[in-house]
This record gives sequence, structure tokens and C-alpha cells, in this order.
Amino acid sequence: METIFTSNVFDTETIELAHTRETIVRGGRDKFSLLAQAFDGIKQIGVIGWGSQGPAQAQNLRDSLEGTDIRVKIGLRAGSSSMQAARDAGFSEDQGTLGEMYEVIGESDMVILLISDAAQVENYKKVFATLKRGAVLGLSHGFLLGHLESVGEYFPEGINVIGVCPKGMGPSVRRLYVQGKDVNGAGINCSFAVEQDVDGKATDQAIAWAIGVGAPYVFKTTLGYEYRSDIFGERGILLGAVHGVAEALYRNFVMEKGMGEEDAFVATVENITGPLSRTISHQGIISVYNALDEEGQQTFARMYSAAYHPAFEILMEIYDEVSSGNEIRSVVMAERRFERYPMGKIDGTRMWQVGEKVRAARTGDPEVNPATAGLYCAVMMAQIDLLIEKGHCLSEVCNESVIEAVDSLNPYMHFKGVAYMVDNCSTTARLGSRKWAPRFDYNIMQQALVDFDAGKEADGKLMDAFRKHMIHDVLATVATMRPSVDISLSE
Amino acid sequence: METIFTSNVFDTETIELAHTRETIVRGGRDKFSLLAQAFDGIKQIGVIGWGSQGPAQAQNLRDSLEGTDIRVKIGLRAGSSSMQAARDAGFSEDQGTLGEMYEVIGESDMVILLISDAAQVENYKKVFATLKRGAVLGLSHGFLLGHLESVGEYFPEGINVIGVCPKGMGPSVRRLYVQGKDVNGAGINCSFAVEQDVDGKATDQAIAWAIGVGAPYVFKTTLGYEYRSDIFGERGILLGAVHGVAEALYRNFVMEKGMGEEDAFVATVENITGPLSRTISHQGIISVYNALDEEGQQTFARMYSAAYHPAFEILMEIYDEVSSGNEIRSVVMAERRFERYPMGKIDGTRMWQVGEKVRAARTGDPEVNPATAGLYCAVMMAQIDLLIEKGHCLSEVCNESVIEAVDSLNPYMHFKGVAYMVDNCSTTARLGSRKWAPRFDYNIMQQALVDFDAGKEADGKLMDAFRKHMIHDVLATVATMRPSVDISLSE
Repeated sequence: METIFTSNVFDTETIELAHTRETIVRGGRDKFSLLAQAFDGIKQIGVIGWGSQGPAQAQNLRDSLEGTDIRVKIGLRAGSSSMQAARDAGFSEDQGTLGEMYEVIGESDMVILLISDAAQVENYKKVFATLKRGAVLGLSHGFLLGHLESVGEYFPEGINVIGVCPKGMGPSVRRLYVQGKDVNGAGINCSFAVEQDVDGKATDQAIAWAIGVGAPYVFKTTLGYEYRSDIFGERGILLGAVHGVAEALYRNFVMEKGMGEEDAFVATVENITGPLSRTISHQGIISVYNALDEEGQQTFARMYSAAYHPAFEILMEIYDEVSSGNEIRSVVMAERRFERYPMGKIDGTRMWQVGEKVRAARTGDPEVNPATAGLYCAVMMAQIDLLIEKGHCLSEVCNESVIEAVDSLNPYMHFKGVAYMVDNCSTTARLGSRKWAPRFDYNIMQQALVDFDAGKEADGKLMDAFRKHMIHDVLATVATMRPSVDISLSE
Repeated sequence: METIFTSNVFDTETIELAHTRETIVRGGRDKFSLLAQAFDGIKQIGVIGWGSQGPAQAQNLRDSLEGTDIRVKIGLRAGSSSMQAARDAGFSEDQGTLGEMYEVIGESDMVILLISDAAQVENYKKVFATLKRGAVLGLSHGFLLGHLESVGEYFPEGINVIGVCPKGMGPSVRRLYVQGKDVNGAGINCSFAVEQDVDGKATDQAIAWAIGVGAPYVFKTTLGYEYRSDIFGERGILLGAVHGVAEALYRNFVMEKGMGEEDAFVATVENITGPLSRTISHQGIISVYNALDEEGQQTFARMYSAAYHPAFEILMEIYDEVSSGNEIRSVVMAERRFERYPMGKIDGTRMWQVGEKVRAARTGDPEVNPATAGLYCAVMMAQIDLLIEKGHCLSEVCNESVIEAVDSLNPYMHFKGVAYMVDNCSTTARLGSRKWAPRFDYNIMQQALVDFDAGKEADGKLMDAFRKHMIHDVLATVATMRPSVDISLSE
């Protein structure tokens, strides 16, 4: 994939990631003064939808564009229950910053379409038809392209079509932006894509959008690679896999190791969302292993070896399903069933009830459990290896497999539990998590834990490959662009 | 769906099933003398493949056609490891009853294509091209039609294309046929479909084939309805659901009710595959409920009410996936991954190890556990209701949701365990079971068991609908055509 590009407005850098080179742009509040130039000709940006990304991106863009004459206006369905939430965030009909979605679409120079994937599928024809001549269409996800491909259609001609895809959930896009006010910014990395560029301005429009929402750094992808890695990633380590791994391991610790329920929760879920995520975020994956004592390293290695292939197998299946269009069709069909059966809650089971008690009684970080560490790192590395195999650029690999997990999603899980995290993601992500978590659970239970509990030795070659993996250096390079702020969550 | 037909060779009956009428033909050894007439013009039947259905159908047909001049000849890939198994079953190159598959296809007047679904997808073009002019193509599954639909192709013109689909796994098709020798036959019911009929003989050819493999009764469907109900059914109550239900319930009994592991296995898996299946087979679903005492009925009703909708939700999803072609594409893609990751075993986990011990120590039937009974019956009824809603004829509904479970698959599970059952089904079924069992498990765990354990009351309307359901009369009518022989299994 071509990841080299130039900009007429922003300074670009070309970084070396292992054997590859990528052009990137660093974000920061000192770049906000360039946004108006990059948005040349755009007087109104319509942000359509108030789901996960909508509130975050609209508020960040509005704040970043303060002092320019570019207006950010929210468009929502007439009678939408989110109208009041948008007003509470400072948008209003009176000031002309809130309106009915098709009116806003028709009058905006740039339309950022952040309605749910399913709503995009239902409404894209009318949206396309309503767009102003020469408007810019912005997406934060390649899902719509995936759907268009599966029905043999495409975007309208004659307009710029760009993507800016924050590699984190909406609430963290806003939270970090707010937290970063005093340190020249903090936020969520974004990939960008130029799907159609009719006037040569698309790249700068996309970069400006990304910097405006607070991206620490911006890298290039295509909408096709984006939806594959994104839909895949949230079904993998970001949501589906972490949930499935937690269930399988917790059950194993309770039923087979005789551990108490709260201890088991601490040794599994709390371990992953707490110390493991924090270590990976600041020091990389390999440091989890390096920090263990010899016995711990042996346990890690045995579990890593038992889990890597069962995880890789499910990940391959997910990638095939996404890439073939099956997963997108499934999401569209699922939405049509919601009227009869809305998505149920996942947090009523005993394990998550135990988790609530554990969080309430939490005092400090628990000791790292080397088996949990080995399992979590194995799934993460399997996801990294698969995305590399499928040709994704290393920034996309790192963000979809590591950074989004440890800097955006896991901290939310640590703070509020799995249900909160799942409920604050997109419907596509929630559906994917519900679909694939049990698959990871069973494959881990049937293969990895059976082997591990039977005392199977570590796989020397696999562990060597882990220790010498290029991703460790790549993560270290990418970490130099990480803001100094950790997300901090409170009620 | 039109289920009325006439035959030039066999006596038909029209039966009333609730508000519907279906034409059926009863099987039996007294009909074998009519087979040659129905197979008029057919001198050789080539049975291609030696998987699950191949050995059963080929041997049954050969035995049923004894004394006619119709030859049953097995066709296998050159160098196939199944050659010896076919020889052991009495087919041989010397006698001209065993050969290379394309040779056999090219020389047969009727070709029964029983290679795996994936092999059909890989080879159908060559198979179609190799068929003799005017040959009859027979399938035991609509999978290939589903694939052809998804790639926009169809069967060759100018030949009869028929389906005969035994509603049970291959080993039981053979086992019951052998057991039924002295009682005018016993076997597995078959649906038949006439997809293309160029000479008016297709219906009789299909009925003859079904009676030849030992069907107690034969009913009409289409290949389209067949693949939907069949692929759906094995993902539902036949394999996927029963596995998922067992895992969720066993875990609940051990982790939340504090039951011992062996007791929990008896109260769940042994209950389902033993007394519940036997009662349903002989007296129908409602009799499970009627046989309970008042307290047992209340428990049954609470669990039934908690489980029906969570099961229906997953079943709807499965039906959509199958009907849209997604599931067929998934199977085709899965087969392509097998070289890298062959299907793993599911029987290594502690629960199935416990099961082995329980089976070894088994003395008689355990007492029925009313919670297990309520859960199992809820999933079965949800499947019945969904198939009716989707327009399947009642014979297909009963066979895919009840009879195949309690007369074919569950007895095998009871005898040899879940892994044996799974490994003796088609790859499509195995894949489906592995995919959907965990989905049933999670939905049952997260919704049904949470509600049940919280003491949620029974749903009066749902229980009324269950008690007054038309399926009870329908099953009673269908049961009159059940042979007097129960499958009996031994090493």
C-alpha cells in the first residue's frame, strides 16, 4: 500500500518503521492556525449524527476552529432524541449550529457523515443526492465503501470523498482532547484516506480534519484497507478477543484452578485492563515479558505458545469474513432484526457482577499474572502478524492492534467494565464483539487452555519470533509521537 | 410451498398436518420390488464419495437393488484413502463396483454426488461436463444450489436434477437399515426435491432412491428450502444449539449451583441425549412437560420462558446468514483455510472428560432435570416456530427440528459423546456447530440463565402457546409412520 504523500499546508515527515517508510503528519494545537487554509472554500462543516464519534468530533472541530469563520453544524434526524444532547454540548438551532440532517447536508460545504453504519446503508442514496455540488464527503469508517462494493455501487462523481478514522472510541477522542488543552494537545491517532480527489485539495482537507479532532499523528491508508482493519480489529483484540479471552481464562481459573471468583477476576480482566495495558502503552509488548522473573517467563512462554495459533485461526476467519463482504452483510441484516430483538446486555452474568465488586474495592494495581499476560500478548501478536500478512501499513497495524486497545478501549473497560465499553462503541463493533467473543472463548478453551493445562512445553521458534519481532522497534518509534497525557477517567 | 405430487410407480398418501396437507410415500422393504421400474433406463448408479452419507447410501442402495440388473458403483478420487474402506464394504474394482470418480461419473446413468460440500464447489464444473447425456444428477443436500445461486450459475440443461436428503447422519442411515431387516425396514426419513425434470421421470427416480436407502416416509421439498432448513437445522437444535446449551447449563450448574461435575453432566448432557430424547421420540415434546410433577412443571415453565426468546434470536440470525448465502460462502472460505489450520478437536476440555467418565459408569436413565428439559424444549420449539414462519412444510419442520435430533443424532451423542457425533457429520455441519454453539452458549448464559437465576416468573402466554401448539398433533401424526425400531448402538 502506498503510504507516501505530500501536503500543501502541513509539514510532513517520513518515518522508518522496520523495513517500510510512511509519511505522517504530527498534530498539535500549534497547527490549528493552519486549519482554515486547508479548509479553503469551506464555510460550513456539517457533522451528521450524534452516536459515538459524532459528539466527540463535532465538539473538537468546533473548538479547534474557534476564531475562524468556519461553522460546525450538527445535523440530526427530525425529532431525534439526541437533539437535547447536542444542545447541552453547546450547539443550537438559534445560533444556526443544529438542524435537520438533510437540510444540514444540503447546505454544508463539507459533510462528515457519522450516522451509524446501518443508517448509512439505509440512507446513502438520499445523502448522495442531497449533497451540494462540489461538497466534500467525509467518512470516519470505510463501512459504506464495503457496502457499496457488495452491492456494486460507488460514491457520486465530481466530489471529494475522504476518510478520517480515529483509532479509538468516540468518548476517548473527546476526553483526551479536553485533557490535552495545556500540553499542545492529546488525542487519538487517525488514519486518513483519499478515496476521490477532484480538485487536489482532498489530502489537506483530510489532514486538517484529523488535526482538528486532535490526532497526535496522522497516517495514510485507503478506505478499503481501513474498513478491513477496523471491522477486523474490533472483532479481534480490541473488543471481541479481549472479552472472549477474559471469559475463558476466568472460568478456567475458577473451575480448574480452584481460585476464588474475585481473585480470578483480578488475575484476568483486571490484569489486562490495568497493568498489562499500561505497560504495553508506555514500554511496548515485549516489556511485559521482560519484566517477569524466570518462572514467570516460562509460564508466559507456555501460554503464549499454546494460544498463538488458536487465536490466529479465529483471526484469519474474521479477516476472511470482513474482506469477503459477509460481515458487512451480517451487520445490515442484524440491524433489521433489532425491531424484534434489540441487542441484549452482556453484563448480567455472575462474572461481571463479581467484576463490579472488584472495581469498587480496588486499591492499587494487581501483580501481573504471567499466564494471563502470555495469553493476551499471544492474541495481540497474532493480530499484528495477520494484518502485516494482509498488507496493512505498520501504522495501521500498531493502531488497530495495540494503541487503540491500550490507550483508548482498555482504560474505559478498566474504569467502567466491559458492558460500558461495549455500549459506547458503534453498533457494528457491538455486534462484532457479541459474535466473535464466544468464538475466541471456545477456541482458547478447547485448544490453548487444554494444551497449557496438560503441561505442554513452550514453542522455542514461536518465542524467538516473538522476542525478535520487528513490531517492538516499530512501537517504540510510534511511541515517540504519543502525547504525554494518559487518558484519565472519572464520573 | 407446494407439497402435493403424484407418482406413476408408488402409492402416495395425502396426510393432514394441522391446517396443511402433504403428499407422502411410505417406504418399506415391500416396495423394493418397484425400484427397478422407477429406475427405468438406469443400469448404473454411481455413488461419488465416501464421507458421511456415501457409505450408508451406497450400501443400502446396493442391498435394496439386489436381484435387479442395476449396479451401484462407487467413484472416488484416484488414490483416495477411502478406497480400502469401500472395498471392506464389498465394493471392488474387480467386480466393476469401484472406480475413479470421473470415470464413474462419465459412465453412470444416475450420479449421486456425495462428495463434501466444499469438494462439490471445487469440482462441479468438471462434474457437470463429465455427466453422460441424459444422466440423472442426484444430490443429498441443496448446498450446491446455494453456491450456484451465490455465483450466478445453475445446473446443466437437459438432465434431471433431483435431491434425496436423509434427515439423519450417514451412520444412522446405515445402522437403522441394517437393524430393520426383519421388520420391513427401518431407516431415516428423507425429503426429496425435483429441481429439473426433463422426461417426467424425476419424481419416481427420487422416491425410488429414498425408499432404496430405507426412508420410512418420503416428503417433498425444494432444494432451496432444503438447504435453508438443513444448514440452519444443524447449526440449531441438531448440533450447534444442543452443544451450546449443554456447555452453558453445565457451567451454570457447577459454578452457580455448586453441583458436582459428574452430577452436573448427568443433569444436563445425559438428560438431553438420554431420557429427554427418548420421551420426545416416542411421545412428543409436550409429554416431557406433562410427565413432570407440579414443582417440576413450574421450573420447566420458568426456564422455558427465559430461554425461548434468546434462542429464537440466535436462530433468526442463523436463518438470515444461511438464506443470504453468507453461511455458504463462509464454509467455502473455511475449507480454504484448513491447509493451514485443520479443524481442531472439541473434546479435550474438562467437561467432556467428565462426560467420558459418566458414560463409562452409566447404569440406567437419570431422573429428568426440569430446568434442562425446559431449556432444551424451548430451543426446539423456537426452531420449530421459526421454520414455520419461514414457510417450510411441516414434515420438513418436524424432521429438521425433532426427528433428526431424537432419532439420529442424540442417540449417537449418548453413546459416544459430542466429539464423535460432530466428527461423523459433514464438514459443513461441523463448521456450523463450532461457529454457533458458542453463540447459543453466550446468549443463553447472558439472558436466559440470568433471568432464571434471578427468579423471573414464567410467561403465561408463551406457556399457553407451547401447550396448545399445533406441532404436538403434527408430531403424533408423523410418529405413526415411525418404524418400530429404535437405533441401537454398540462397538
